[in-house]
Amino acid sequence: MSEVTAQIAGYLRQAERILLVGHMDPDGDVIGALLGLREALRRLGKQVVPALPDRPPSKYAFLPGFAELTTAPAGSFDLFVSLDSSDTARLEPIYSTVVAPAGRPVINIDHHITNVMFGTLNWVEPRAASTSEMIISLVDALGVPMDREIALPLLTGIVMDTRGFRTSNTTSDTLRAASRLMDAGASLGEVMERALNSRPYAMLCLWGKMLATVHLEGRIAWAVLTPAMQAECGNPEEGDGGFINLLVSLQEADVGLLFYDKGDHAVEVGFRAKPGIDISGVAFALGGGGHPQAAGCTVEGSLEEVRARVLDMVRRAIDGQRALYR
Amino acid sequence: MSEVTAQIAGYLRQAERILLVGHMDPDGDVIGALLGLREALRRLGKQVVPALPDRPPSKYAFLPGFAELTTAPAGSFDLFVSLDSSDTARLEPIYSTVVAPAGRPVINIDHHITNVMFGTLNWVEPRAASTSEMIISLVDALGVPMDREIALPLLTGIVMDTRGFRTSNTTSDTLRAASRLMDAGASLGEVMERALNSRPYAMLCLWGKMLATVHLEGRIAWAVLTPAMQAECGNPEEGDGGFINLLVSLQEADVGLLFYDKGDHAVEVGFRAKPGIDISGVAFALGGGGHPQAAGCTVEGSLEEVRARVLDMVRRAIDGQRALYR
Repeated sequence: MSEVTAQIAGYLRQAERILLVGHMDPDGDVIGALLGLREALRRLGKQVVPALPDRPPSKYAFLPGFAELTTAPAGSFDLFVSLDSSDTARLEPIYSTVVAPAGRPVINIDHHITNVMFGTLNWVEPRAASTSEMIISLVDALGVPMDREIALPLLTGIVMDTRGFRTSNTTSDTLRAASRLMDAGASLGEVMERALNSRPYAMLCLWGKMLATVHLEGRIAWAVLTPAMQAECGNPEEGDGGFINLLVSLQEADVGLLFYDKGDHAVEVGFRAKPGIDISGVAFALGGGGHPQAAGCTVEGSLEEVRARVLDMVRRAIDGQRALYR
Repeated sequence: MSEVTAQIAGYLRQAERILLVGHMDPDGDVIGALLGLREALRRLGKQVVPALPDRPPSKYAFLPGFAELTTAPAGSFDLFVSLDSSDTARLEPIYSTVVAPAGRPVINIDHHITNVMFGTLNWVEPRAASTSEMIISLVDALGVPMDREIALPLLTGIVMDTRGFRTSNTTSDTLRAASRLMDAGASLGEVMERALNSRPYAMLCLWGKMLATVHLEGRIAWAVLTPAMQAECGNPEEGDGGFINLLVSLQEADVGLLFYDKGDHAVEVGFRAKPGIDISGVAFALGGGGHPQAAGCTVEGSLEEVRARVLDMVRRAIDGQRALYR
């Protein structure tokens, strides 16, 4: 047990009423960490409220405690735990209305390297592939035996933040953590089925429309998404439903680009690159950011203008990197 | 170490020249098992020839030893090892021209429950998610230290036979096996990237054409594939490229059906079902077979006739199973 998990366990044991809060636009990792830790703390007889600024996607409704997730936490708390959030802005409006006014300790648990250390106690592990994976050690530090109700949300968080063990931050420790949760009764098949490999019919409609726009220029594959296409398909949740990952999976492509033309003279651009290619510099130069293999930005201009400009920049970035490695 | 792996290790240690042979239509598991075992035996100074009845898909060319895979093994051998094949028919023509005439011991290593135990020594573990996973214990039994060249093919086999840890036979042992291979230097990201998440542009073209045929009737999603569609897209390898798995991933569907209309009054039907639904009985009744969640058959008739007949049978099977569980 590390010193910081022991300290956090100490705070949690002393508290009576605890608010767990996660970030806006909630994903599987923050939901998994919230519900896994909630369940472990209930085992110790604590009153726990799990809260999120936005309503969670309904596909996570199979997780124990999902119905307890609230966007409007009520009452007073003597301890706050922030999960998977790199700063307090991503906890709003809950942070400024509930957490800050209480003047009580805030424990900050996160795996993002960009975390600004806003807590009373900060436990940030950038090498962890997910915050849910970190919660396993905390459950151990609390002395709570792992069981299915705790393990299922945590496994879901691990699977979703690694896209089913496919991202480059998936380590052998990640697989061992997942196998331990399976041994505790969590079904990997159920998680894969319900959380990862599940899409509405409307999304398949949208994929069909995006597929019709796919172009391959050199080793760059690009496609277009518009609000009109979304409306025609009944506005499915979750943006492109992973279509951009399909683009970069092409054998003929090193980079996948998705242009989301919102029609207000601004185009959101999603970037994906194969390992060995770094497109984060291009996204950063255009005012965005991200990781070497996955980044994004918003660019002013018409679709035609933005596409020409971004394609040109990506082409130069690829050529520069190839020259470097030759 | 189990008794049978110790026995097999004994046979392998005594042999000088060994033929490893896998099944026709080679997939990632048989290729991984062949190349992983080949590399381990080379460490012991053995002469090893890895053979397959058909040429392996080029996407596995990143695996150490891939160039050694042959469809025409030459010379004499004093030991034969069959990998991932449930019977000798799937080893033809190599079995009847090379293996049988030699009259030497045949070791049969497989994880299919349908294995007919054709070997001199049979090691069949239906609970293993892949034959490649079994080879790990054999490498241990041989006393060969695991390293990257052995681990990378084996990890590829595990990943491919579980579709990236997504099939229902993926256990916590599968994940632990994979984590051990990663610790030995095999990159899961590389395997996911090169073997699993890699498709030709022509396949995306084909997906576009299949998407245009998708229908949802009740909780059955179906689509059509034809040789004309394949020809228009430049005849990509590997059939539907996993499109049928996309069909059953729909939230609105319990069953996905793909009708491959070959145009000679016979239609190949692929079946996929969500966990809890068993469509293997329908495929079996139509002269095919498979697993509860994945099966197939070929039905005589026009596309219209076959589609109507199969949809009706699947509908009744689903209704019957629902009635049973209610």
